[in-house]
Amino acid sequence: MKEKIIEVSIDLFGHNGFTETSIQDIVEELGVTKGTFYYYFKSKEELLMEIHLRYIDELLQNQDEVFIKNTKSEQKLYDIVYMIMKHIEGHGQSARVFFREMQHLNEEHLKDIFKKRDLFRQNLNKVIQEGIDTGEFRQDLNVEIVALAILGAVNWSYHWFDPKGKLDEKAVSTIYIDFMLNGLKAT
Amino acid sequence: MKEKIIEVSIDLFGHNGFTETSIQDIVEELGVTKGTFYYYFKSKEELLMEIHLRYIDELLQNQDEVFIKNTKSEQKLYDIVYMIMKHIEGHGQSARVFFREMQHLNEEHLKDIFKKRDLFRQNLNKVIQEGIDTGEFRQDLNVEIVALAILGAVNWSYHWFDPKGKLDEKAVSTIYIDFMLNGLKAT
Repeated sequence: MKEKIIEVSIDLFGHNGFTETSIQDIVEELGVTKGTFYYYFKSKEELLMEIHLRYIDELLQNQDEVFIKNTKSEQKLYDIVYMIMKHIEGHGQSARVFFREMQHLNEEHLKDIFKKRDLFRQNLNKVIQEGIDTGEFRQDLNVEIVALAILGAVNWSYHWFDPKGKLDEKAVSTIYIDFMLNGLKAT
Repeated sequence: MKEKIIEVSIDLFGHNGFTETSIQDIVEELGVTKGTFYYYFKSKEELLMEIHLRYIDELLQNQDEVFIKNTKSEQKLYDIVYMIMKHIEGHGQSARVFFREMQHLNEEHLKDIFKKRDLFRQNLNKVIQEGIDTGEFRQDLNVEIVALAILGAVNWSYHWFDPKGKLDEKAVSTIYIDFMLNGLKAT
C-alpha cells in the first residue's frame, strides 16, 4: 500500500501540483480511508520528502555503480548522462515533482536533499577533474561551471523529453555526449 | 501601480509559490485595497499571464536585436546565451515564476506562452543551422537536440546562479560558450 500511495501521489502532484492535491484526493484515488494514509505517513510533507529521497538516493546509488566500473572519464560521463535520462524516461512525473515542488519541503528536509544533490554534483565535478588530470579533457576547463552546464542540459530534459517521441533516451544521451565532448565548432 | 503589483507579486510568487499567495497577500504588501488590484487585473491568473508574457516577450525582443546585427553564428550564439543569463541575473524571481508556475495558467494562455517559447527555440535552431550552413559549425549536429541542450544548460542557471557570487553573468556566459563551441575533449 505504501508503494501505491507514493505512486498515485507522484502522479497527482505531477499533474496538479503539491499544494493543489489534498490527502483526500490521494485516498479517493486509491479507494482507501485517510486512516490508511496516516498509517504510512505523518503528513503530506513527509510523503513529499519520501518521494524526494527516493529520487535522489536512486540517482546517487546508480552514480556509485558508475564509479565502481573503472573506465575512462569519457565513459563515466556518458554513463552519468544516460543514467539521468533513463531516470527521466522511467520517472517523468517524479522528476517534475522533484525539481518543481522542492520548495514545499520543510527546512530540515530541504537541507538533507540539498546535501545529497550537492554530493551528486561534486561527483560529476570529480569525473571532469579526473578527465583533466588524465589528459582526456582540456586543461583550461572551469570544472564547476561546466558540471552545472551538463547537469542543466540533462535535467532540463524533463521539460520536453517524451519517451514516446522519435528519439529514445539512449539516442538523446548519445547526441548530448557528442555535443559535450566535441562542441559545435567545425575543426 | 500596475508595475508595483507585478513587482510585488513576482517576489511573493517566487518566494512562496503562486497557489500559496492570495490577492489579499499582494494588496497587504502594497498597503492598497483589493479594489485597486481588480482595477488592473481580473484575477490572479491574469496577473500570472502578464508576468509570463513580459518574461517571454522581452526575451523574444532581445533575440530579434541579436538577429538584426549581422554577425557570425558563433557571436549570435554568445549573444543569446548572454541575454538569457543577463535576464536571469536581473529577474531571478521572474525566471522562477516563469518556469515553475506555468502550470497555473489556463489552457488558452498556456498555448500562447508555449507558442512564444517555441518561437524562441526555433530561432536558436536557426542560428545553429546557419552555423552549419556557413561551415562554422560541424555538419553532423542534431540541431534540435543540441538547441535543447543549450537552452537547458542556460535556463537551468536560475536554480543556482547568484548575482552576488564569484562569477558574474558575463563570466558564466563566456565559460558556457567556450564549452558549447569547443567541448570537453583535449585536442
